[in-house]
Amino acid sequence: MEKKAIVLLSGGIDSATTLAIAKDSGYEVYAISFRYGQRHHFEIEAAKKIAIAMGVNRHLIMDIDLASFGGSALTDDIPVPKRGEVEDIGKEIPVTYVPARNIILLSLAIGWAEVMGVSDIFIGVNVIDYSGYPDCRSEFIEAFEKAANLGTKNGVEGKRINIHTPLITLSKAEIIKKGVIFGVDYSLTHSCYDPDEKGRACGKCDSCLLRKKGFAEAGIEDPTVYTYIE
Amino acid sequence: MEKKAIVLLSGGIDSATTLAIAKDSGYEVYAISFRYGQRHHFEIEAAKKIAIAMGVNRHLIMDIDLASFGGSALTDDIPVPKRGEVEDIGKEIPVTYVPARNIILLSLAIGWAEVMGVSDIFIGVNVIDYSGYPDCRSEFIEAFEKAANLGTKNGVEGKRINIHTPLITLSKAEIIKKGVIFGVDYSLTHSCYDPDEKGRACGKCDSCLLRKKGFAEAGIEDPTVYTYIE
Repeated sequence: MEKKAIVLLSGGIDSATTLAIAKDSGYEVYAISFRYGQRHHFEIEAAKKIAIAMGVNRHLIMDIDLASFGGSALTDDIPVPKRGEVEDIGKEIPVTYVPARNIILLSLAIGWAEVMGVSDIFIGVNVIDYSGYPDCRSEFIEAFEKAANLGTKNGVEGKRINIHTPLITLSKAEIIKKGVIFGVDYSLTHSCYDPDEKGRACGKCDSCLLRKKGFAEAGIEDPTVYTYIE
Repeated sequence: MEKKAIVLLSGGIDSATTLAIAKDSGYEVYAISFRYGQRHHFEIEAAKKIAIAMGVNRHLIMDIDLASFGGSALTDDIPVPKRGEVEDIGKEIPVTYVPARNIILLSLAIGWAEVMGVSDIFIGVNVIDYSGYPDCRSEFIEAFEKAANLGTKNGVEGKRINIHTPLITLSKAEIIKKGVIFGVDYSLTHSCYDPDEKGRACGKCDSCLLRKKGFAEAGIEDPTVYTYIE
């Protein structure tokens, strides 16, 4: 019998690649995505397409109203910053940070994992391109894994919960190169924080800049349709 | 200026008492409650009444569909166990355990705290009457607090997050005695896992048994209307 794993699937490059890695490692994959009050639905649409294309066993889409908190450009009325160059992305925590997002999403994934008797959870965080998000760092993931093992039935009953972060030290270019080997179709993924009404990427937000740079450095053609071309 | 605190308010004895303690400690209180797919709405109604009676600054009620996971008698079709005596409550994790509940609810409280610039979060967990719930133990709370400080903007920017558990070592009787001193009106609270259609307590589930025992040991009259009387 195959081991089961839950993969957090946002619909971007990182989570699609993480899903491919989990499958390649021999796991039977269950994907979970969240509608957390994002300003657009293209991420979720991308997640659905990826889940189907990659043959997951089940794809759970959960609603959670993080927008009721406010406080982020990704869920609120704060403008998404636009920049000319990837080097302009500062070291400060950006306004696109969603408060406590990975803590919340990992907690929900752990709840589902408990019910399904699953011990392995995959999340596509990485420290290289993390744009100053504190909840993408390995120190946080390790501390959270410890808390999860102390605070759940699985953990207490000795069925250890493992949070896998296979991309943690990879650059975007390395992630893309790995994904291409595993057959990830990146034309299905969505990265842009601020797409137009047809879902076309703006080409200027932090997420678009990192995506473009990743494909360029990997020497792989970027399948994305951008509305802004240099 | 008063310091602000967020209190997790379920509508039961413990959270109502915790709210009173936070207020007495000089905090300006913001309450958060969750509709997480409970089988009945009497808890949330109780939380609303308590929030009004105790004069909180804001009461946020958040929807979160934990029932989509299944796996608990509190959100699912599994029967709530009925017992004759409080001593029958075993040491095993009961079917009324909601998978990863406190991890999830604390994570959401931390998200709201970040947006509001609040560092102090109160939760009414206790180890004495915890009925085998792993996420009520202090080891879990401490590990979770550490993860929260590593994985949030507040934590990273040096604005430490503190999770207060003022009831952690108190028995139900001690909690009730403390609450009465602070003027908590326990007739507003709801404990029963399996009330009738009018919200009257069954008198036989774990939560009713612990509540009855608490009032009896405190020597305080229990204002609850039970449908089952010995």
